[in-house]
Amino acid sequence: MTFFNHIKRLKTINLHPAHILVLGFLVLIFIGTCLFMIPAATKDRHHLSLIDALFEATSAVCVTGLAVVDTGTTFTLFGQIILLALIQLGGWGFMTSGILMFIILGKKIGLKQRLLLQESLNTFSLQGIIRLLQRVIIITLIVEALGAIALAIRWSQEMSWGQALYYGIFHSISAFNNAGFGLEADSLSKWVGDPTINIVITSLFILGGIGFFVVADIFEKRNLRKVSLHTKITLSFTLVINIVSTLIIFGLEYDNPGTLGSLGTTDKWWAAYFQGVVPRTAGFNSIDISQMTLSSQVYIMGLMFIGAGSGSVAGGIKVTTFALLLLALWSVVTNKEDINIFKRRVPKTLVFRALSIAVSGVIFIFLIFFLLTITEKGAEMSKILFETVSAFGTVGMSAGLTMELSPMGRILITVMMFIGRVGPLTMAFALAIHANNKAKIRYAEEKILIG
Amino acid sequence: MTFFNHIKRLKTINLHPAHILVLGFLVLIFIGTCLFMIPAATKDRHHLSLIDALFEATSAVCVTGLAVVDTGTTFTLFGQIILLALIQLGGWGFMTSGILMFIILGKKIGLKQRLLLQESLNTFSLQGIIRLLQRVIIITLIVEALGAIALAIRWSQEMSWGQALYYGIFHSISAFNNAGFGLEADSLSKWVGDPTINIVITSLFILGGIGFFVVADIFEKRNLRKVSLHTKITLSFTLVINIVSTLIIFGLEYDNPGTLGSLGTTDKWWAAYFQGVVPRTAGFNSIDISQMTLSSQVYIMGLMFIGAGSGSVAGGIKVTTFALLLLALWSVVTNKEDINIFKRRVPKTLVFRALSIAVSGVIFIFLIFFLLTITEKGAEMSKILFETVSAFGTVGMSAGLTMELSPMGRILITVMMFIGRVGPLTMAFALAIHANNKAKIRYAEEKILIG
Ligand SMILES: [K+]
Ligand SMILES: [K+]
Repeated sequence: MTFFNHIKRLKTINLHPAHILVLGFLVLIFIGTCLFMIPAATKDRHHLSLIDALFEATSAVCVTGLAVVDTGTTFTLFGQIILLALIQLGGWGFMTSGILMFIILGKKIGLKQRLLLQESLNTFSLQGIIRLLQRVIIITLIVEALGAIALAIRWSQEMSWGQALYYGIFHSISAFNNAGFGLEADSLSKWVGDPTINIVITSLFILGGIGFFVVADIFEKRNLRKVSLHTKITLSFTLVINIVSTLIIFGLEYDNPGTLGSLGTTDKWWAAYFQGVVPRTAGFNSIDISQMTLSSQVYIMGLMFIGAGSGSVAGGIKVTTFALLLLALWSVVTNKEDINIFKRRVPKTLVFRALSIAVSGVIFIFLIFFLLTITEKGAEMSKILFETVSAFGTVGMSAGLTMELSPMGRILITVMMFIGRVGPLTMAFALAIHANNKAKIRYAEEKILIG
Repeated sequence: MTFFNHIKRLKTINLHPAHILVLGFLVLIFIGTCLFMIPAATKDRHHLSLIDALFEATSAVCVTGLAVVDTGTTFTLFGQIILLALIQLGGWGFMTSGILMFIILGKKIGLKQRLLLQESLNTFSLQGIIRLLQRVIIITLIVEALGAIALAIRWSQEMSWGQALYYGIFHSISAFNNAGFGLEADSLSKWVGDPTINIVITSLFILGGIGFFVVADIFEKRNLRKVSLHTKITLSFTLVINIVSTLIIFGLEYDNPGTLGSLGTTDKWWAAYFQGVVPRTAGFNSIDISQMTLSSQVYIMGLMFIGAGSGSVAGGIKVTTFALLLLALWSVVTNKEDINIFKRRVPKTLVFRALSIAVSGVIFIFLIFFLLTITEKGAEMSKILFETVSAFGTVGMSAGLTMELSPMGRILITVMMFIGRVGPLTMAFALAIHANNKAKIRYAEEKILIG
């Protein structure tokens, strides 16, 4: 069997971390797909087809949250627990989970495992990787527990304690891992103006989306002036983008009868805040996205493309990549040699990589989007593009098309979610790495005209 | 007056070529706008508003071809000749025209003028600039004359010799400069299957869109193996893109009753060829674009974004920039140090610039598109995006929205046409160059996590 051959090869061939990362996610998705197809996972008459099970498993592992079936009414408790497990394992990243297995099995962690973990967590040095991993797990469990308790207390006001606790745990895990899966068909729309739900859910996904490195960095330094450049850029850009987005959504939707129009002023602000902050990767919604103005939808697509923090559960190009793009363009237009921010210089190679990530992201989105216009004849362009970018950013917000997708369309969105989670450049790297077998000849340099 | 102050300053301040280039186009557009507002330029009751005159002048100078009025029925012969003059001056580029003035006035051409000309033509060295300029003018006039004669002979079969000659001259100038303005409301749809019209018009705009440098290079070397790397990349990518595009349009529109469905097989191929080749900057159409499938429209948007040859009349990011993007991504995914093509190595700085051009192009398109969704409430997203990308690529194909644009929307598309012609990076450069006044401090380098 191919699958076991791959596993066997893992031990014998010196695979590149990018390959192992991709393979790891694939294995997890494969297992999830099989589990979702067990009859006990779904309620009567809701048996999932292979394509739908694959879609749901990919969406869970890639913490996207797009769904072709309604989570609450389709899955049994068993199915929902599988979903949560896939979300948590996907959130930690396969490599983190893999090392966890090594620790549990009492094996020594060698250089190769550390290297894999480094690729998975996208952090700097091998030193302290294990400490970081321990922190990842401890922080995750503490934050999720606190979130679950807070949500359960709030929900106990309107449901039984048992159900409230389960709702709390489900939404806390889903929010902290930025999965965006909910138990209600209209996500969190029932609690659009509820302060507790708004504050707890957004705190969870902002914390989860900012990246483990940033959280650990702040914990360690306990002084915002001493934190690393990465933390400073992530925090400042996250803050500015969130404030600007809240204001823009508030302005664009203020008198839209389908969204904010019918709400009181305080509820308007809660909804604008929630919808402004959520698109960079979390994927819940407290108002009907398909009813939003085209302008808001286009703006949200921009946010989904950017995504949240690097080394987090987020998809998209990541907020630091976006920051580097703006800084790079600024340095080009002002004719400056260096790319400076917060009195530090950013290496040129990083900027080159940032530009490559953005361009490869645009190319992947264009390709999948173009193919979807062929498979989804008659669908509106705005809906197709919205779901494509949502999948790329592993956001999971939907303008309504996902449930109606054709089988080929479901496969295309599945592929896009996977690319979004693995990262466009890593994906391209994993696809093309074998081509590098030629002898090294260095050719003469020649300029061409561009632009 | 500000205008004259600017002219005065030109002589005293050491302006950057990017500023003079932008200013040059602005002056030409200003003159065109004034001329279009003269009553004699338009037929009875068709007097243009300031915004419409500005739109038409910008569209002509930037050789875009988007039109808020029907050229044939709105403009008098006088108005149409102004339009042609603006197209030709815009096509040569303001700097070329400026140097022309210097020659005509018998002035010596100094280093500064040569530098301006270099920026305008986007070529390599100062040597041979004047020879290149002479060639530009001679080639333009010869090719346009040949085109006009061929078209006039064909059109004399169905109209008077006088009208046929005028049609020939108008369409020849419009095609060679890739302006895309026509004299019929439905562009060239009447001659969708006509071999002469198809061959002559496409030859003219491909020749004009490939860039003067390539034409001069081939003329000089007379051997495709000896031409420069720039010429090789431009020719090979143009050929491949044109063949692929013809096949894709043919496949996507084959049974669409609104476009190719009702045509015979030969006519289908002519129409697919024309519509596949035209979008990278020329902007004519021989079938109704608004009737094309969404897939074709999306594909065409991709072509319009790419544009044609560098140093030509084309907008967009240019075909060599696109080639470098693909090569850069290929080098990243295959982990290669060098970026090689045709046994030559491309300098890293060029690749960096190419990535910057693409990213700044995407950002400009996103901004204008987002603003248009606010000003054009109720319009379909696909139409808004199509016109935005068409303006960016100075293509001028329309999915039908331009004629219905609100005044604010007309101004936004005018701005986009201008950015597309000047180039997104030059535009950003011209806007931001004054910011570079700080003392040079070199900060310590620090890495961050991206992607
Ligand atoms: K998500
Ligand atoms: K054009």
